[in-house]
Amino acid sequence: MKNVDLIIRNTEILTMDPDFSVFNPGAIAISGTSILAVGLETEILSDYSSSSVIDGKGKIMMPGFVNAHTHVPMTLLRGLADDLRLDVWLMGYMMPVEREFVSPDFVNLGTRLACAEMIRSGITSFADMYYFEEEVAKATAEIGMRAVCSQTVLKFPTPDSQFFEESLEMSRDFISRWKNHDLIVPSVAPHAPYTCTAEILHASAALAAEFDVPLHTHLAETSVEVENMRRENRMPVIPYVKKQNLFDAKVLAAHCVHVDDGEIHTLHHAGAGVAHNPSSNLKLSSGVAPIKRMLEVGLNVGIGTDGPASNNDLDMFEEMRLTSFLQKGFSGDPTALPARTTLLMATRLGAQAMHIGHLTGSLERGKRADLILIDVNPLHNSPRFRHDPNGSYAQIVYASKATDVQDVMVNGKWLMRDQQLLGLDEENLLKLSREYARKIDQFLIKRESSVLSKLVAIGGTEEEESFEIQLKVRIDDPKPLINKLNNSTIEIIRKRHYREFDLYFFFADIEQGILRYREDEFINDLGKIEQVRSRLTLIGPTSEDKFEQEVLLSRSRYLAPATQSPRFYREYFKPQFEKEIEKDRVRYLVRYKDVEFFINFDHITTPTIGHFVEVKSRTWSRQDAEMKSHLITELIEFLGADLEEATSDDYIEMVR
Amino acid sequence: MKNVDLIIRNTEILTMDPDFSVFNPGAIAISGTSILAVGLETEILSDYSSSSVIDGKGKIMMPGFVNAHTHVPMTLLRGLADDLRLDVWLMGYMMPVEREFVSPDFVNLGTRLACAEMIRSGITSFADMYYFEEEVAKATAEIGMRAVCSQTVLKFPTPDSQFFEESLEMSRDFISRWKNHDLIVPSVAPHAPYTCTAEILHASAALAAEFDVPLHTHLAETSVEVENMRRENRMPVIPYVKKQNLFDAKVLAAHCVHVDDGEIHTLHHAGAGVAHNPSSNLKLSSGVAPIKRMLEVGLNVGIGTDGPASNNDLDMFEEMRLTSFLQKGFSGDPTALPARTTLLMATRLGAQAMHIGHLTGSLERGKRADLILIDVNPLHNSPRFRHDPNGSYAQIVYASKATDVQDVMVNGKWLMRDQQLLGLDEENLLKLSREYARKIDQFLIKRESSVLSKLVAIGGTEEEESFEIQLKVRIDDPKPLINKLNNSTIEIIRKRHYREFDLYFFFADIEQGILRYREDEFINDLGKIEQVRSRLTLIGPTSEDKFEQEVLLSRSRYLAPATQSPRFYREYFKPQFEKEIEKDRVRYLVRYKDVEFFINFDHITTPTIGHFVEVKSRTWSRQDAEMKSHLITELIEFLGADLEEATSDDYIEMVR
Repeated sequence: MKNVDLIIRNTEILTMDPDFSVFNPGAIAISGTSILAVGLETEILSDYSSSSVIDGKGKIMMPGFVNAHTHVPMTLLRGLADDLRLDVWLMGYMMPVEREFVSPDFVNLGTRLACAEMIRSGITSFADMYYFEEEVAKATAEIGMRAVCSQTVLKFPTPDSQFFEESLEMSRDFISRWKNHDLIVPSVAPHAPYTCTAEILHASAALAAEFDVPLHTHLAETSVEVENMRRENRMPVIPYVKKQNLFDAKVLAAHCVHVDDGEIHTLHHAGAGVAHNPSSNLKLSSGVAPIKRMLEVGLNVGIGTDGPASNNDLDMFEEMRLTSFLQKGFSGDPTALPARTTLLMATRLGAQAMHIGHLTGSLERGKRADLILIDVNPLHNSPRFRHDPNGSYAQIVYASKATDVQDVMVNGKWLMRDQQLLGLDEENLLKLSREYARKIDQFLIKRESSVLSKLVAIGGTEEEESFEIQLKVRIDDPKPLINKLNNSTIEIIRKRHYREFDLYFFFADIEQGILRYREDEFINDLGKIEQVRSRLTLIGPTSEDKFEQEVLLSRSRYLAPATQSPRFYREYFKPQFEKEIEKDRVRYLVRYKDVEFFINFDHITTPTIGHFVEVKSRTWSRQDAEMKSHLITELIEFLGADLEEATSDDYIEMVR
Repeated sequence: MKNVDLIIRNTEILTMDPDFSVFNPGAIAISGTSILAVGLETEILSDYSSSSVIDGKGKIMMPGFVNAHTHVPMTLLRGLADDLRLDVWLMGYMMPVEREFVSPDFVNLGTRLACAEMIRSGITSFADMYYFEEEVAKATAEIGMRAVCSQTVLKFPTPDSQFFEESLEMSRDFISRWKNHDLIVPSVAPHAPYTCTAEILHASAALAAEFDVPLHTHLAETSVEVENMRRENRMPVIPYVKKQNLFDAKVLAAHCVHVDDGEIHTLHHAGAGVAHNPSSNLKLSSGVAPIKRMLEVGLNVGIGTDGPASNNDLDMFEEMRLTSFLQKGFSGDPTALPARTTLLMATRLGAQAMHIGHLTGSLERGKRADLILIDVNPLHNSPRFRHDPNGSYAQIVYASKATDVQDVMVNGKWLMRDQQLLGLDEENLLKLSREYARKIDQFLIKRESSVLSKLVAIGGTEEEESFEIQLKVRIDDPKPLINKLNNSTIEIIRKRHYREFDLYFFFADIEQGILRYREDEFINDLGKIEQVRSRLTLIGPTSEDKFEQEVLLSRSRYLAPATQSPRFYREYFKPQFEKEIEKDRVRYLVRYKDVEFFINFDHITTPTIGHFVEVKSRTWSRQDAEMKSHLITELIEFLGADLEEATSDDYIEMVR
């Protein structure tokens, strides 16, 4: 008779172990953080005793749910904006609000709010991806939940870093300090192939492999992502990330909606886990992932809620139900994804997908005591039938609600008893979150009267965050400079000739930015107009850094196709005043010393302010910007322009 | 200052009226069963006073949900069987259990259990379709909910009637007595085009039109239904039912998953309502209805839970969420079915689809006081944003749970206050329902060891409930009889020739029925075998009625394609003993006096028991059976067989 810390007895236990063992009435013996034994009550009670014995009568005990993909601090943005196109939602609402409000405090509070909600609905482990991820880890560890916490890396500026080098450095530091935590598995999250450079993917994989921690990312979420990938790299998403050595790391890939059979096998061979997010995939119109096929191939597929801003809650019961229903509905086979399989995804397979299957996901000897008790006898789940051994799985997946969860334990410690959260002050969390909501409301109400929101409101804008290093020099005649381009040190990749008609709208509040209506007339080699394109660009306030002569401009732009007339936009946006610029532009894309540059030879015809040469290059890092700044000076001097004539003014600033 | 029975004040009111009026803070004045006024609190309080004023602080008030299609007594079958093919689920589980257990008491208890669950989740009105529908009406009226109660009519025997004439008579009686009830709208429910004859559809429509009550039915639920309809009637489902004059009545059509644009317009012109059941349609693999298009055309589309046996609960929050998500996910447009539209479907449009829109579905002066109050500030729905006027709709559709409903009023009477049901003894309901579950479990556990369940377990069975009127006569030589067929009074529609090899399995328990393995060899005009088909038939115990010489046989058969060898079935079913019969059969389908008959000329070769002629016809009603019985005798005599040689034995009974 071995004495243990705790015995829970007289309950139906769904272990979710590889044999799907069910013990009824069952019991579990827990010592410290771990499960010492689980089995039939008679056997457990004959081998173990404890001064603490709990009766689980009328409840089902099972492993806690594993939320395999989420962005928990976004609880604070729940319901901020719904029923919008992904770009409008993301670029028009989420990212501007995140830029304004996301701070360590925001992340910490959002995590605590999310943990309270997740504990209430029976979640014991989750895989998170956000900014200031250390705050997620801190709050989660303090509350006592288990999580894979992934620090986001992006090629764009984020709320926690201006350049990706900083995010990577933050990730390394975070991982090295949290590596051996009992509850937290630190991780790095290159956001997605289309929001990361190849370099970021390589570096992230190397970092995760070095510390043997998971790498968390979004893969193949939308068909547009796959189409773009095929066009730009002539391959689908999974082979592309494989080529960037992503699978050197233990990958947790969220979504995988648009993957083919070969890609599923690649993921399987790579030992990658997949997080399926059915609510988010439908709500954002991404599609339905081929889960049935993934499971047949043997992939570890977990279920995630995704962030509460696109769901709008953290309820694994809703996700399970939807997972089963969608696979049945779209395979034409109502036996697809039976309840037991779906519950397995929501527990053990999810833990395996997160690469923490050795710790949690099933009730087995030696695993951590991460478990929940569910009341399966409420009105909405009555009566209960016993004739079918799978009936209990079906009850939980098809009829139980998050509010039926009674008790939650993580790592041997109770986080909820009889629906009372232990150690979390819900009233205070709600109060603090209401304060954030009030401030965000104020921000948005103010912004709703802004040019950007009006631009968003007329549809289809996409944001472009650009960092450009550029140098502009006034010249008398472009011909001698153009002749200089015919030189072996400069490779001309492309040349285009066009006329640009720009109409600028200025607003009383300069923070609103400047709205440009542009018509581009492309002129072919015969001097004929080949194509006309119209678009709107809202140019945000520009921040400048000087590098020698050159200027590093970082600015955000919102682009939208201009389907209406200039008159329409004038009436719609009601600018304070307008300016017009018309120019003839010959644009070269060249390669010089292995770097690509645009060289524009501009002749400003309205107003008549003469000729200019402009050399530009995109950049994503500070180090890169410095290197390019040297090359631009070299190029300008080589072409023979006079650096004394350099100007940092935009054309629009030269116009009275 | 007018005095009223009740004022509810200081709450955000979503009226769901045609202007989508929102009052915040709003108030409502109620007198008797009806809404006297709804508006801004300041206005209502200056016009009305009451000794009973309730503060709705922190809650949203809205019309109660309208569950536009369900089978409420099936709460007692919730979770009985899941993850099965529709035919196995329906024919193997639901129908056998219903045949055994459905009684007025079952229906009454199931309705009360369902009403308790529906009130808890904020449903105030529902459209039901079941057997013993008067019991649904009685229980619902007693509890105080509003419902359209539809008595089912089928061409098969049902738990409440043997022939459809009885069901129609029950419906007429039920409708005439409940016609002017304050809460119940009685109605008739021809189950579906494929489970009703054209005659039943005509008669049901005429009945509903005569009393001006709704007609409730299932239309175009599965693609198989549409394919069969096209094959048999050369048109899709909606034109077919139109041809049967169905739209003479006010139709409520459940499902309409597989309808084209023309059919949507037909439904619209007919003033028919549609009930969308997304959970059921996915769970049973039926598909996704084109709701977005239906709404564009202007159809009244409500949302239903369908029966709790295929859902598995009665939760309109789950259905709303799924309705929005599915239309977004499958239109490729995340702005499709925004929350406000979905909430409209779940309230006013649903009431209009049920043809009770003049009574309920929105909070407007003159409508009945059917309303609910929801707590929109729980943890899983915090924080709240105010900047977007549609934010409250999104909160309810995307993040609220059924358990957030606080108060429910129907017809001016509170049914739930502060989550306490008034006038329903939940504990007793649960106790009684557990007793039914125990009995059904016993029945199924016993049956699970039966031949039928084993047949079901190996897949794809379909049930055929047949009523046949037949006469069999021993003859010496078929030739003279066959020659007689060439006569102007008999039209030969089809002739087939085949050899049949039958293997019969007999079991110790004769209630198990007899299992037949049959190979049919079709023989073409050249005497060659053209096609071979193998199938299993489990022949249930036969009930017989004598009509003159003829026998009316009613029996249930379960058919399954036989994909395995006779050896496999022998080992799998372990019969007590077997019999073999081999025969040569020439089968004519003829028309005689406007009625179709099968005439079989059988030569039994193993064992050698000689020649027989058999005349058969299907029948669906007793009156029809009597008429056909006369014609069969005439036919047999006309062919020249000796009625003295008539036998009511099956061939199998003639074999030692």
